[in-house]
Amino acid sequence: MNYEILNTIKSPADIKSLDKNQLDKLCAEARDCIIQTVAKNGGHLASNLGAVELTVALHRAFDSPDDAIIFDVGHQCYMHKLLTGRFNRFSTIRTEGGLSGFMRPDESEHDPFITGHSSNSVSAAYGIYKAKQISGEKGTAIAVIGDGAMTGGMAFEALNNVSGGRSNFIVVLNDNKMSISKNVGGMASSFTKLRNRPHYHRFKFAFGTFLNKIPLIGKCLFRFFENLKNGFKGLVYRNNLFTAMGLNYLGPVDGHNIEALESLFKVAKIYKKPCLIHVVTTKGKGYSFAESNPNSYHGVSPFDTDIGAVPSQKTTFSDIAGKTLCELAQKNERICAITAAMESGTGLTEFATRFKERFFDVGIAEQHAVTFGAGLAKGGMIPFFVVYSSFLQRAYDQVLHDAAIAHLPLKILIDRAGIVGEDGETHQGIFDTAFLATIPGINIYAPSDYKELKSLICKTAESDELCAIRYPRGCEGISVDCDFNEDYTLIKRSGKKLLITYGRLFSNALSVEIPQVDILKLNRIYPINDSILEILNQYDVIGFFEEGIHNGGIAEILGSMLLENGYKGSYHINAINGFVPSACVCDSLKKYGLDSDSMKHFFNTEAL
Amino acid sequence: MNYEILNTIKSPADIKSLDKNQLDKLCAEARDCIIQTVAKNGGHLASNLGAVELTVALHRAFDSPDDAIIFDVGHQCYMHKLLTGRFNRFSTIRTEGGLSGFMRPDESEHDPFITGHSSNSVSAAYGIYKAKQISGEKGTAIAVIGDGAMTGGMAFEALNNVSGGRSNFIVVLNDNKMSISKNVGGMASSFTKLRNRPHYHRFKFAFGTFLNKIPLIGKCLFRFFENLKNGFKGLVYRNNLFTAMGLNYLGPVDGHNIEALESLFKVAKIYKKPCLIHVVTTKGKGYSFAESNPNSYHGVSPFDTDIGAVPSQKTTFSDIAGKTLCELAQKNERICAITAAMESGTGLTEFATRFKERFFDVGIAEQHAVTFGAGLAKGGMIPFFVVYSSFLQRAYDQVLHDAAIAHLPLKILIDRAGIVGEDGETHQGIFDTAFLATIPGINIYAPSDYKELKSLICKTAESDELCAIRYPRGCEGISVDCDFNEDYTLIKRSGKKLLITYGRLFSNALSVEIPQVDILKLNRIYPINDSILEILNQYDVIGFFEEGIHNGGIAEILGSMLLENGYKGSYHINAINGFVPSACVCDSLKKYGLDSDSMKHFFNTEAL
Repeated sequence: MNYEILNTIKSPADIKSLDKNQLDKLCAEARDCIIQTVAKNGGHLASNLGAVELTVALHRAFDSPDDAIIFDVGHQCYMHKLLTGRFNRFSTIRTEGGLSGFMRPDESEHDPFITGHSSNSVSAAYGIYKAKQISGEKGTAIAVIGDGAMTGGMAFEALNNVSGGRSNFIVVLNDNKMSISKNVGGMASSFTKLRNRPHYHRFKFAFGTFLNKIPLIGKCLFRFFENLKNGFKGLVYRNNLFTAMGLNYLGPVDGHNIEALESLFKVAKIYKKPCLIHVVTTKGKGYSFAESNPNSYHGVSPFDTDIGAVPSQKTTFSDIAGKTLCELAQKNERICAITAAMESGTGLTEFATRFKERFFDVGIAEQHAVTFGAGLAKGGMIPFFVVYSSFLQRAYDQVLHDAAIAHLPLKILIDRAGIVGEDGETHQGIFDTAFLATIPGINIYAPSDYKELKSLICKTAESDELCAIRYPRGCEGISVDCDFNEDYTLIKRSGKKLLITYGRLFSNALSVEIPQVDILKLNRIYPINDSILEILNQYDVIGFFEEGIHNGGIAEILGSMLLENGYKGSYHINAINGFVPSACVCDSLKKYGLDSDSMKHFFNTEAL
Repeated sequence: MNYEILNTIKSPADIKSLDKNQLDKLCAEARDCIIQTVAKNGGHLASNLGAVELTVALHRAFDSPDDAIIFDVGHQCYMHKLLTGRFNRFSTIRTEGGLSGFMRPDESEHDPFITGHSSNSVSAAYGIYKAKQISGEKGTAIAVIGDGAMTGGMAFEALNNVSGGRSNFIVVLNDNKMSISKNVGGMASSFTKLRNRPHYHRFKFAFGTFLNKIPLIGKCLFRFFENLKNGFKGLVYRNNLFTAMGLNYLGPVDGHNIEALESLFKVAKIYKKPCLIHVVTTKGKGYSFAESNPNSYHGVSPFDTDIGAVPSQKTTFSDIAGKTLCELAQKNERICAITAAMESGTGLTEFATRFKERFFDVGIAEQHAVTFGAGLAKGGMIPFFVVYSSFLQRAYDQVLHDAAIAHLPLKILIDRAGIVGEDGETHQGIFDTAFLATIPGINIYAPSDYKELKSLICKTAESDELCAIRYPRGCEGISVDCDFNEDYTLIKRSGKKLLITYGRLFSNALSVEIPQVDILKLNRIYPINDSILEILNQYDVIGFFEEGIHNGGIAEILGSMLLENGYKGSYHINAINGFVPSACVCDSLKKYGLDSDSMKHFFNTEAL
């Protein structure tokens, strides 16, 4: 496809004058462009395909950047990137130095806020909206949030705050009937009920379109009608979650009908009460593979567009975690597994099928997941919460307050720990070591290979303590068949220098033979066993390589312990400072001095 | 009062046989006991007075501990303590070694879960409930949650997860029309609408009572009626927030009518669908001072019961923070203040009145507060989020993901930082230093006195960086009139030993003259200015005294820096390890070696 129209779109203003045929062509071109690009670079496909017309309608009805449009999680913002002057760079998406896969304020004035983690769009947009109100700046703010993201408590906190007052703040619910997996919980059922009201929709749509055609008195009529409407609410308009929260509910509207969407947005724009517009879209729209199996096309690795994405055959840490939990659950009826909308990503699909009663997908709700898990533990179960490292950040207080203080033996399996690659800053799993280590009574483990992961899951299942096991995205590296000790593994090469590391980096350390450098691999990385201090005292030079944030990390904790205990040698920390941008894992590790070459270089030069 | 009946209640079973008169007397005695005790020890008064009959009815309808009853935040659990065998020890509440002011599993089998932080009860109770279901244990679980706590997103996450399925899980909404201050947001308005439906209530109550009197077929009839009911939902029963979430809504019911409550609870107990029971109570009920001014009687210091609680006349750090923000807001229209339901506690009452448009009480919603603030900052405002240290734990991810990555210059004023005293483990502000220091780009300041706090607030208002200022509960100590440098203050006494500290502990350091010990007071505690390393190298012995958690704390960060930079002297950290139980601040500081005597002792003995 040669992207005839797409090529002419330099800013959202350029789509305002297009006619229906041109718009249809634009959408077809954009779909093709998104499919081809994701097939090449990997990325989020199904959600982005679902939001094509919605994005066109938004940019026709509103004036970005005066109207700030925030797409909750970047899964839906590719079309937005294509319409806001980034078509030429779109092929670089999710590559080092290229476009981000999520909204990035430093990339475009049309991206008002970072939305890598779910459910923050309403809060952010409302903040921007209030700032406009206070300073008298023109424009409004629009949060575009998926039905999945709506299950995050943060979105609810924001909606509760938004309601009331005379404002034309707008929330667009992009309801594609699923988030990453099939949606769960009471709200999802509630949306289903709302969707099944075609008459209401047609009525509402006709009404909006009609009023928009009346130039001057349209607004007055609209308000008059609204007042009238409130008189018989519950007959024509059913109450629902959103009206109960004080929002004006408009919809549902077909999310692939640009005209219908545009009309409704224009109504909301002049309406002096916060509105929620319920838009129904089809995840994967326009690409048959994705439409029929949206779950598999949520996030994909590069694939052939003709045959579709093929699930990787490689075994990953996630697979081992899921498989081990199944084995345990088979033998022990107290084993439970919890996920926050990441069943497939965390390797729990088999568990979910085989142990339905003991599997809990709680929605995008990490806070609830942890405390619910703590409750299960209190009730005598052995709950494993399997979660991506960067999303666990949402539940810091719950791990501390709900699990740790009462010594509840929740187990947390931290997937995607360390550098994750292309998803960039918001998704790097580099903070878990540091924030978890502040929590009294927790035990943190870092297996280096599948065998260790399995062994640690089995071990912690029997522990009556709060435990976390962190492991990286993807596959194991070189594995070494040494005795696995709960605390640490020491590989002696009769040197006076010591390399300390843990987790995935151990295979980097092993892969380069550094003469006279011993290797200490921590298995339980926190708390650090005091007994290793004696070992460390035998070395003149210690280099700690940590795939985690420097401040508050394990290397720093150890450094301080060493100084307090009178260590007089030379100690160097190689860890991560600052946020890690998008790049492949190898390149990032190299950049932060955590690859084999850097290790070798360190001991050959700097440390001497 | 001689507590005739209260004295005979050794367990909840003892109240089941009491008749109406005895129950009324029990409630009167309990109210008196609660008022007298809180007047002596301080504590949460108004909410506890409001929950007296509710608690009696719960313990009559259910069988604790088989039925797990979890009161969200301890503000409502004093009556529960009195009815569960703790009357004899009730006078020790909130004293060192005495009863906790919150639910404590290690205190009684009737306290299933720790609920110091708001909004976690539904998650915890649902976990316990599912554990019972899986293991086939008898009993159900009940979360009793206030309308204020219901604004926390975590509660919403849990409600979303609870709905659906055949279960008799029960949520009791204790709606006293306010949380700590007057309640805010769309949900509060929604509750008001629900409350104003007296007919519905009478109908529902009669219905419940009636069915309960039919021994065998009551359940069947009930279900039949329910099915019927669903047919004309929206006419007799309005849809509301909870029905939209898939819960069965019962109520509203008068929360001071034991009989009515009991009937409704018994209906819920046999009902095979998760229920939410809407109970309307009066905060402060039975104590005229508290009833007419519940806000002032939320949490109180000891007072005279005849004249009521008198607001302290002492100026506190909170007052200074509020006053300074008012002064800034007067001069600069971009200054905004945000609170998460703590207007009065954080000293923002004057700001709220004078700068209504720029003041935001977002409910018990710390996550939203931070991201909303980041949005305001993005929109050009200068937002200050004023929050208690231990509640900021809820927003770790938001500070990191929504403010720090995009360099949004949100300002966080951390009140109640450090040890807070009687509220115990859950409320100690000892983690903020450690978890914030993991966040790249943040600046953390720790003023020691009012002058410094004011100066730092003014300074950070002009900064374009993400800043946090932490200060303790209560009043300043000894103040020293030295030059205030942004980074640190060095008090030289020509010694070879150095005491490092920050914040409130500085006055402890000053109050004891330790010969030949210099004092380095950090003002910006993070990031630590590299230039101090040179200063530190001049000392043989360094003792760091930190009112914060040891792991990940500032002393540890500095220790590791020193070792990496080749410091060869002796370094000792005196900080907090583990959770800090309830005790007065002085005693806790002494216990952790952070008082003046410990400092003196340290330099006179250990460090030599």
